[in-house]
Amino acid sequence: MFRFLRVNMATKTCVLEEIPQEYAGLGGRALTSTIVAREVPPTCTPIGPHNKLVFAPGLLGATNSPNANRLSVGCKSPLTEGIKESNAGGQPGGHLARLGILAVIIENMAEEGQWWQLEVSKDHARLVPSDVAGLNNFDAVANLVEKYGKDCSYITIGRAGEFKLTAASIACTDRELRPMRHAGRGGVGAVMGSKGLKAIIVNPEGGKNQPLNDEKAFREASKRFAKALAEHPITSKGLADYGTAVLINILHEAGGLPTANFTVGQFDQHESVSGELLNQITKERGGTVAHGCMSGCMIRCSGILPDKKGKFQSKWPEYETLWAFGPHSGIGDLDAISQYDYLCDDIGVDTIDVGVAMGVAMAGGGIPYGDAKAVLDAMHGISEGTPLGRIIGCGTATTGRVFGVRRVPAVKGQSLPAYDPRAVKGQGVTYATSPMGADHTAGYAVTANILSSGGTVDPLKKEGQIELSRNLQVATASVDSVGLCLFTAFAILDVPDALPAVVDMLNAKFGWQLTGDDVVTLGQRILSTEIDFNRRAGITLAADVLPDFFTDEKLPPHNTTFDITHDELKTVFNWVEEKN
Amino acid sequence: MFRFLRVNMATKTCVLEEIPQEYAGLGGRALTSTIVAREVPPTCTPIGPHNKLVFAPGLLGATNSPNANRLSVGCKSPLTEGIKESNAGGQPGGHLARLGILAVIIENMAEEGQWWQLEVSKDHARLVPSDVAGLNNFDAVANLVEKYGKDCSYITIGRAGEFKLTAASIACTDRELRPMRHAGRGGVGAVMGSKGLKAIIVNPEGGKNQPLNDEKAFREASKRFAKALAEHPITSKGLADYGTAVLINILHEAGGLPTANFTVGQFDQHESVSGELLNQITKERGGTVAHGCMSGCMIRCSGILPDKKGKFQSKWPEYETLWAFGPHSGIGDLDAISQYDYLCDDIGVDTIDVGVAMGVAMAGGGIPYGDAKAVLDAMHGISEGTPLGRIIGCGTATTGRVFGVRRVPAVKGQSLPAYDPRAVKGQGVTYATSPMGADHTAGYAVTANILSSGGTVDPLKKEGQIELSRNLQVATASVDSVGLCLFTAFAILDVPDALPAVVDMLNAKFGWQLTGDDVVTLGQRILSTEIDFNRRAGITLAADVLPDFFTDEKLPPHNTTFDITHDELKTVFNWVEEKN
Repeated sequence: MFRFLRVNMATKTCVLEEIPQEYAGLGGRALTSTIVAREVPPTCTPIGPHNKLVFAPGLLGATNSPNANRLSVGCKSPLTEGIKESNAGGQPGGHLARLGILAVIIENMAEEGQWWQLEVSKDHARLVPSDVAGLNNFDAVANLVEKYGKDCSYITIGRAGEFKLTAASIACTDRELRPMRHAGRGGVGAVMGSKGLKAIIVNPEGGKNQPLNDEKAFREASKRFAKALAEHPITSKGLADYGTAVLINILHEAGGLPTANFTVGQFDQHESVSGELLNQITKERGGTVAHGCMSGCMIRCSGILPDKKGKFQSKWPEYETLWAFGPHSGIGDLDAISQYDYLCDDIGVDTIDVGVAMGVAMAGGGIPYGDAKAVLDAMHGISEGTPLGRIIGCGTATTGRVFGVRRVPAVKGQSLPAYDPRAVKGQGVTYATSPMGADHTAGYAVTANILSSGGTVDPLKKEGQIELSRNLQVATASVDSVGLCLFTAFAILDVPDALPAVVDMLNAKFGWQLTGDDVVTLGQRILSTEIDFNRRAGITLAADVLPDFFTDEKLPPHNTTFDITHDELKTVFNWVEEKN
Repeated sequence: MFRFLRVNMATKTCVLEEIPQEYAGLGGRALTSTIVAREVPPTCTPIGPHNKLVFAPGLLGATNSPNANRLSVGCKSPLTEGIKESNAGGQPGGHLARLGILAVIIENMAEEGQWWQLEVSKDHARLVPSDVAGLNNFDAVANLVEKYGKDCSYITIGRAGEFKLTAASIACTDRELRPMRHAGRGGVGAVMGSKGLKAIIVNPEGGKNQPLNDEKAFREASKRFAKALAEHPITSKGLADYGTAVLINILHEAGGLPTANFTVGQFDQHESVSGELLNQITKERGGTVAHGCMSGCMIRCSGILPDKKGKFQSKWPEYETLWAFGPHSGIGDLDAISQYDYLCDDIGVDTIDVGVAMGVAMAGGGIPYGDAKAVLDAMHGISEGTPLGRIIGCGTATTGRVFGVRRVPAVKGQSLPAYDPRAVKGQGVTYATSPMGADHTAGYAVTANILSSGGTVDPLKKEGQIELSRNLQVATASVDSVGLCLFTAFAILDVPDALPAVVDMLNAKFGWQLTGDDVVTLGQRILSTEIDFNRRAGITLAADVLPDFFTDEKLPPHNTTFDITHDELKTVFNWVEEKN
């Protein structure tokens, strides 16, 4: 009853196939990365016919586990040229899992210039010419909803994906049918665009929760996990009240809030883009606080921020979005950033790589520093396909290159997010070494470095950072495979019963006898698979470094450099035998 | 008496230093690549303070050898992120050699926004603030000539280099003080720009030819080499009459003239951009045929093409320039291309990477196909620093990325020149494997594939191409180290006494006892050094491939694909032990 949906864009065939034995027991990131590693030629052109785009819900998708309906998206990345897994909230992950579809594999390409949409329903799938090509995500989804109804969920690309820009994202609709939950990083939207696939419509009708080997045991374990989430102050309250934007003031205090393209670690206007202010004006304007993006969410880190007249403006921008357009680009205006956030969602681009690109363009003289109107114009330029818009829409590395910028905050072509590696050194280790390129979620050392979650490691010292990042990268690979929202990790790190509860859910669902150690082994195996793909794609340990300005220049106010050496960084994946 | 000039742009110190023992006996490419490999951290930012820019004349510079005054320019390339040697004709190579300066090593960076010029004369060098920043090459040189006189030679960057665009070149003045001989490939101009170095003024006063261990033996060997050049039809006449543009009709006939971004191997307007027409209109307009770019040139492959009114328009465009702006971009207008060529020289960009970028932008809808006026505007845009101009000025790979083009003809980030690898397969091997990125000069298999020079290897078959490319890459590395113009290779390949004459010149100059085998060993050693740098920079054998469309798509009229496998390509450098 569980199957892969294999879609060939050239022949327009959609085949529901038995799951090959070698993929049994894999979900989410473990499944996308394994399929990509086995089926995609590592040196292929990412926007060409040999790349594949894989969507996979996690192992606990469509169960009663809280926060388990994330959708992993995998491919060879046109941004990093390495393997990519980018995951999103919203409804499609749960819907696919309810239909028993454990992976949708998009292969080959349609004729250039043609656009198709994929209809997926119980036991059936087909490609039809797309009605919504040329539209951005909000209009596209509105049109699709009119045709397919409100019970479906939608996976779409905006014009950035159609243009195959390397910071293009893939949008998933949330519970209110807004395309605001994105697989943002690595240009997965460009891969979808290259295939000629504009939209996927997932009709969950007739689907059901996944079968459980031991229903009672599952229910009990699920309750224990819910209890852990309800107990932890961050997952129960912090994120719901302020969103991830709560971090603005925290990172400012820590001196790790990269400002003006990573020249200083504090932003004097930090309060004007803070989570506290976001909460306040949301309430003042009658918006929504504590909004969950997908079914089963207990954490509810999002919200809806109306404009000054009370009209829908955007979802709550994430901390990284606020930071990229805010401190990094010198813009201390929450409403302006909220509008950029909406445009990123609409046009379909990664808020991080595009927001960071704005600040980098400023450093190169392409956009005046701190000019909110110029940034707005550049955002519209992405949708219009202007040269400047396309540059920015290709992300930070391309923008840095085009504007001749020396200090480009990117690793493996992907921009660094919102934590300066000189002041949050564990995060720097993750940026340098993750096979995904610079990615805060790949091993979120902010936990122990800043939030005292999962222990405490001094963020300014090098000691302990390698181990911290290693352990988090391994754990995250597993979390991303289970389909859990990464924010559950706060509970997993701090509440002793949380991880056992997750393991017990997996065992109860599948009839396994996993232990906590097996979760570590799974995470290592996923990373090994990803690293092996990267090696075959030509990405070696030489790429596991930060740009040299982080080791050359001291970051105020702590005046620290990133002093973890390349040789030390090479020890992160100490179980991987380097051969090539 | 032979020394290195080491210039620190941060401290403004210029030191003439003894040549360290490990660099003894090296010149040209052997010297630049060895210095870069030893002194530049391979993972550094190419436009940052840790990169170095090295200028080195060849081993036979400033002797009476014909065609031996090329100047090698080496650094870590901002275009390929690997090692780069790009060499140029013109006068500065011979002048530096006459001053006994075997390498100029530019280190560190000036304060951002400051521009300096380096004055080099006998036993003295200093940095002074530059008068000519902001000017393109022709105006810059004209101003410098006014200040420093007509006896000096000049090395400059145009605005592209100031902008640090990754296709920026470095210009050397020819005998008539025109900045038209460029180290074009790999973005060496961006490195010079990143250092804050606008110009180098080389005053040869008081310099002299290099001393010879055995003057008589040298004179005799030099005469034999001159005789060989005078005997070969290509070096004595073919290039002088038609320039390298002679290849347009030849490659058209061979079906290997890449047209409309490598979709077909013939261009219906080939005659309107041919060497024959170039010769004809040059004569009609009273221009110059058979112009040598540097002292000691016997081949005289260049010319001066006036415009329709008889006024200087540009030098003869090279075949690759004619091809990139012509067949590749659908423009059959010799005068238009001559104007682009002038602008490339003036603004300081590689005609190949920029010309190919034009055709790639056309493939992506950024410029209308075949629109000569739009290309002219885009050329001016480079100088003006418009977003489109900067994109194009960053070359083919960046242009392909920004415009979402799937079929991007580039290897290791550097664009393929004017020979389709499916119809000139030996050339394809060189493109795929050269440590320089796609570079026709690195192993010019057109010789045996098309011109029956150095034997004959069927261009459409895979047999013999690996060995052909290997031997040529090895020989070329040596030729580039001797300071010889690559076109001497026709004589070296076909006239039995040519190579012995070169070896005898080296022996007579240095008191060595080299044999022909030693030349092979030298070439292999240089390539090994370059490959080792690339491995440490993170460029592996995985990067030794052509873009997959060359293996997927048949090229009319022969309807061949590039069928030399990646495993076969990995055997090119069969003496290199792969370790990392």
